[in-house]
Order: sequence, then C-alpha cells, then structure tokens
Amino acid sequence: MGENLTRNLLVAQSGGPTAVINSSVSGIVAEAIRNERVDDIYGAVNGILGVLHEDLVDLRLEDPSCIQKLSQTPSAALGSCRYKLSERDYGRLLEVFMAHNVRYFLCAGGNDSMDTAHKIAQLAGSRNYELRVIGVPKTVDNDLMVTDHCPGYGSVARFNAIATRDSGLDTEAIYTSDTIKIIETMGRDTGWITASTALGKDGEDSAPHLIYLPERPLIAETFLEDVKNVYNRLGRVVICVCEGLKNERGEFLAASPKEIDTDKFGHAQLGGVGEFLVDLVSKNLKIKARCDKPGTIQRVSMVCASQVDLAEAYQVGQLAIAKAVEGENDKMVTIIRKSEDPYESENGLVELEEVALRTKRFPETFINKQSNYVTDAFLKYAGPLIGGPLPEYAHLRKQRLSKQLPQYV
Amino acid sequence: MGENLTRNLLVAQSGGPTAVINSSVSGIVAEAIRNERVDDIYGAVNGILGVLHEDLVDLRLEDPSCIQKLSQTPSAALGSCRYKLSERDYGRLLEVFMAHNVRYFLCAGGNDSMDTAHKIAQLAGSRNYELRVIGVPKTVDNDLMVTDHCPGYGSVARFNAIATRDSGLDTEAIYTSDTIKIIETMGRDTGWITASTALGKDGEDSAPHLIYLPERPLIAETFLEDVKNVYNRLGRVVICVCEGLKNERGEFLAASPKEIDTDKFGHAQLGGVGEFLVDLVSKNLKIKARCDKPGTIQRVSMVCASQVDLAEAYQVGQLAIAKAVEGENDKMVTIIRKSEDPYESENGLVELEEVALRTKRFPETFINKQSNYVTDAFLKYAGPLIGGPLPEYAHLRKQRLSKQLPQYV
Repeated sequence: MGENLTRNLLVAQSGGPTAVINSSVSGIVAEAIRNERVDDIYGAVNGILGVLHEDLVDLRLEDPSCIQKLSQTPSAALGSCRYKLSERDYGRLLEVFMAHNVRYFLCAGGNDSMDTAHKIAQLAGSRNYELRVIGVPKTVDNDLMVTDHCPGYGSVARFNAIATRDSGLDTEAIYTSDTIKIIETMGRDTGWITASTALGKDGEDSAPHLIYLPERPLIAETFLEDVKNVYNRLGRVVICVCEGLKNERGEFLAASPKEIDTDKFGHAQLGGVGEFLVDLVSKNLKIKARCDKPGTIQRVSMVCASQVDLAEAYQVGQLAIAKAVEGENDKMVTIIRKSEDPYESENGLVELEEVALRTKRFPETFINKQSNYVTDAFLKYAGPLIGGPLPEYAHLRKQRLSKQLPQYV
Repeated sequence: MGENLTRNLLVAQSGGPTAVINSSVSGIVAEAIRNERVDDIYGAVNGILGVLHEDLVDLRLEDPSCIQKLSQTPSAALGSCRYKLSERDYGRLLEVFMAHNVRYFLCAGGNDSMDTAHKIAQLAGSRNYELRVIGVPKTVDNDLMVTDHCPGYGSVARFNAIATRDSGLDTEAIYTSDTIKIIETMGRDTGWITASTALGKDGEDSAPHLIYLPERPLIAETFLEDVKNVYNRLGRVVICVCEGLKNERGEFLAASPKEIDTDKFGHAQLGGVGEFLVDLVSKNLKIKARCDKPGTIQRVSMVCASQVDLAEAYQVGQLAIAKAVEGENDKMVTIIRKSEDPYESENGLVELEEVALRTKRFPETFINKQSNYVTDAFLKYAGPLIGGPLPEYAHLRKQRLSKQLPQYV
C-alpha cells in the first residue's frame, strides 16, 4: 500500500453469537493498537448491516480495560445480524469503505460470512481499491472447512458436556420419577454440538446413554428399542438429541403434526424434537420422561467457556490483523492441530473461496455402528477443545450394611 | 441417652436434587466424624425408600477426600426419592432404626420430608425409643416456613441470573431474528425461582424485560400488550416465565389444548408454557420467538453454584448433627439473616411441626403493580444469596462515526 495512505481497520461480527467471538474482537483491537500501520479502528454495528447503513463506531475511543474485558464477555458486543446481501449491496459496502478509508476489513463469522468477505475482496480488486480482507472463523456449529475446528465450538461443547453430566446426576438421584430425560441441543444440520454431550461422561453407566445425530434419520421403533434396553439395564436413561433430527422421509421431527406415524406413536406436537420425543416415550413406553432444552444459553455461557477456546479465539483475531497488515488478502485464519498430548495448536491461512458456503460434515467415523452414540475417535478429537478435564465429582463407594431384618414387602 | 448405648447416625436425602444438598451431607459426615458421641455413620440409599428396604451404606468407609469432594458435587449422591409413606411404613422405619441402633436421624429435604421426619420423631417418642430427629432444609423452591431461605435456592437463583443475562446478550446481538425470547424456569407453585432471573439484570434495557410468576394468572391480552410495549421500545424482549403459570381459570397453560381462547390466540400445544407462549407471540404479534428451557440443568449446576449457598448448606448439615448430639429432637435447622451489608447469617432451630407440609408464599410485596416484574424488595432479599455480584461484562460505549454518505435505501 502507498506510504501516505490512511489505513483504517473495520471489524464486523456476523451470524449467531458465541461465548468467544468477543475474545476475537478483543485480540484484533489489542493487536491493531500495537500496530503502527493501522490508523483508526472501527467496528460495524450489527455486522454487515452496520456497514451498509454506515453505522460504525470508533473502537479507539473505548476504554482499554473494556477491550480487555471483552475477552470475558459472551455474545457479540458489536451486534450481529443474519442478512443476505444483494448485488447492489456489495457496491454500497465498497462505497462505505472508501468513505472511511477502510483498508483492512476483518469479518468474524461462519461459511456465509466467508462468502460475503470473499465477494467483497473480489469486488475491491476488480475496482482497484486497495483492501485487505481476512476472515476470522467463528461458529458453534464447527462446520467450517479446512480449519481443524472453529472458535465457539469448544465452549458450546464444554457447556453441553457439563450440563449433560450434571443433568445425568439429577436423573440418577431421583430414581422414582423422571427416569427418562431428553436433552435437546443446537446444531440443526450437523452432529458436532450434540456429540459433545459425551465429553462429560465419567463412567460406563453415566449420562449420556444415547446420542442421536442429524446425520442419521431417527427411526421411532429403533429409538424406542434403544431406550427400553438402557432402561431395563439401569432404570434410567439420559438421551441427547439434536434439534435438527429428521425422520426417514427427511422431515424435521417437530415441524408438522404429520412427521411420523401418528397412529402408532402418538400425536406429534410443536415445540421442538425434545418435547416430541418426551411424548413418544411417555406414550409408548409408559415411563415418565422430561426434556431439558438449554437453547441459546448453551452458545453464550461464559461460566462454561473453554479456556482453550477463549485463547484460540483471541489468537485468530490477533493473527487476522497481523496478516492483513503484512499484505494477505481474501483469506481466512485457520487453526491447525499441532500436537495431541499435550494439545497444541498453531494458525494458518486458507483462501476464502475454499471455505465460503461449504460445510464440514460430521465424519462417519465419529458415529457408532448402531447410530446411537459417538465413537472414541470423536472423543479424542473434541476432548482437548473443551479445555482440559471437567472438575471431578465425588463417587461414593456405597458399601452396603448387611441386612438385619426380613425383606419388606 | 444411656452412656453405653451405641449411637449410630443415619442421614437421608429427599426430594429433588440441588447443587448443594451434597454439601449438607459433607458437613454432616465431617462433623459426625469429629464427634465422639456418634458411633457409626450410615447413609440411606435413595432416601426414605432405602430405610424402608434396609438399603443402607457405611459412610465411615468412604475416603475422606471423597466426603470432602461431595461439597463440590451436585445432585444427591446417596440417591433420593419421591414416595408417600403409609402408616405401616412408619412402623417399619422404626424397626430398621432399632435393628441398626440408629439414634440420630437427619433428613435433608423440603416440607414433605419435614412432615415425614416429624412423624418419625413422634412415633419413636410414643414407643420410648430414644431417637433424635433433625431436619436439614433443602429445596430450590425456597418455600420452607420460618427459615429466611433454603439451601439450594441461592444456587438455582445464581444459575438463572447468569443464564438470563447471557441469553439476553444473545438476543441483543442478533437484532434481525429471534427478537423475542422466552425463558422457562422451574417453580411450579411459587415465583421464587422465576423471580431470580432479575438478579443478573445489569442495565435498564438489559434482560429480563418481563417476568411472569405463578402467583398471578397469565392473561393473554395483557401479556401480549406488555410484550408489544417492550418490543416497540427496544426491538427485542426477553421474558422469563414460571413453568407453573396458569390462566384466569386456574388451568396450567400447557396442560390441555383448551387452556386459553384458541380461536383468538392460536391453538395451544403440549410441551411446556414456554413453547406455548412462543406460539402465542408468533401467531399474534407476527414476530419470531424462541424458548430456552434449561429444565433440571438449572437446579444441579455446580459451575453456577453460589458460594454463600454452598457454605450455608454445609453449615446446616454440621449444625444438625451437633444439635442432635446435644439432645435436640423433632426440629429443623433454620437460617437467620443476621446482617444485610455485608450479608451474614446464623442458624437456629424450629419445631418440625411448624414447617411440615406448610409452604412459604412468595410475598405480594415482591411483585410489581403490573404483575410483570419483581420489586426492589425482592432484589434486596435475594441478591446476597447468589454469592456476590456476577462477573462484570464489557459494555462498549459505541461512539458513532459521523456519516459521510447519503442514507442507503
């Protein structure tokens, strides 16, 4: 870039919030402040919509302690949006960049946002406007290509690991009621999030006992058989299911009252797959069931955030601006797994085109043969991302006293 | 008691699990081990059912580190149950006590359990069997009489304060979708738990914006009006509701398809009041709504446990066995609020009869005039119980840049 150019930075957050996307912004701003080749530091209010409507804030005017505290603040502090840009919109974005001398554009988001970022980079190039565009990976769905994993995933995984373990102890304690529990997690299209519920399992008979992923259709008969088998063995069942479960016909299990054979398996209902399965279990197995559905709480829980995830989110932010200044453009920062034990990662770059609009599928090798649990390969992959082992709980030995009285009947 | 009597202790956990009921057991066992007037230390497996069926464990055989770790382990490690005892059952309980020289019986539970404990004390007295019965208060519902509050409540309150704040930031971030969020909490009959969602509110416009308690019927028209008002002001609404909400006719809002005027407010559905209200809002206000329902996760979350609650739960356990040894009987330990700022509590005793089967109502003075939020009096009461202020989040000043371009339309 020309030596006398004003080189301002604009950062935008995109899509669903996570526990750590603010940590990325914190890393970006901290690094940008240190870098003398960055002039002003701007943030887009509510993501790309803020750029369109020229609703920008000056991040150099924020208190440094506030920028630091961002790394411990969940959700998206600048605001985000879900918005599909038109051709005309792209032209406007460039106008706004030009009006504010934006030469570095960093966008934290998922595969849609990487597509947007890529198109902006292409357009700027074709118009000879000097702009460096770098994507910062972010999604609890963990479905970006090339990168080993996505910032946001380790924390939603840790939340679900902890919540499932705790909720499993709850089910274990009250053995006279609520003996079947269904935990509904996010992750509409892929099983990454639901699978993470297995990361807290601390014993053969501990929760979760069954996991159903959207990569496989849920077949009511098989499901009920699985549940009955665990129930007969343990007297309780904790079942983790993905909100995006579908039946054999590819229909969402909670979208319409016609989803599955209603005569045989009771009437369907609105209100999510969790409540749907509660109904299915109650009606067919005659055992009381209940559903926990943490919903959006799972993706923005700071008390459950993974330290590994928080640190990596910060690093991808730092690297993004450093690389933009060095001259990189039209790329996304990736995380590369460097060693397993102890877990270490490093960062790389990938062409935005390679990640835009594409989805990393949940590997077949991570699903067990019965399609009702994850494999050890998944646990090995995801274990380090939740930031070390969970706090250990007490497990009583429960040495029984010998009975002195006849059996009570 | 006679000097040569074998004086064994039996402890039982009862009713729904909490984050801190194991802390009470930890306190009981630690204190009992130190007290030379306690011989063996037994635990009942699955509460009073374990006593009936003589399913008892020897807690002196547990590793001391395990007893200590119990204070950081949620749910009920000995197991619990919900079971209504018959007349005949009481006789059997006494037989089991006699067979194992149980002279101290400590029961951690709610108002049903206190009734059971009271009846056991009465029966032992009438049969001249020397037994000291002490109740240990425990319930997330916070509805025991006399005691200022109940162990378990501070932690479920802290969970809900944190979850609502986090989930509120989530709603605030994505301003183009999911702009109405309903968080369904536990607390079927009283508003104690739902009210606690207000304890994390850190600004006038922060979540929660509306709170509906079971002490007031939910009137659909008023509810929709409230929601619309907040929405028009902020463009988003976070609404916390109790699972036990009823309509004007006293019917649960999720129990049957006939609950409220279905022609006017759309069809009702199973699956909890949260999903019911999502449907009501979506159909009548034409704004996308979603529901978070943490369910049992809220009552057994150790990462969200209140340090005040954990400590008090331990103390009521310690005091229970100390007082039993001193000769107290047929009483429950209470918590007395000693000072407000800094918050301090001390313990007392109350006759079991005074708390058995009775319910402490959520005070009228804790509900606002519009019946859609709590009062400052509630915040003052409950604030200290969640163990100090929540970790502070970053709040950006968001100093706007002046616009350089015409408005984009």
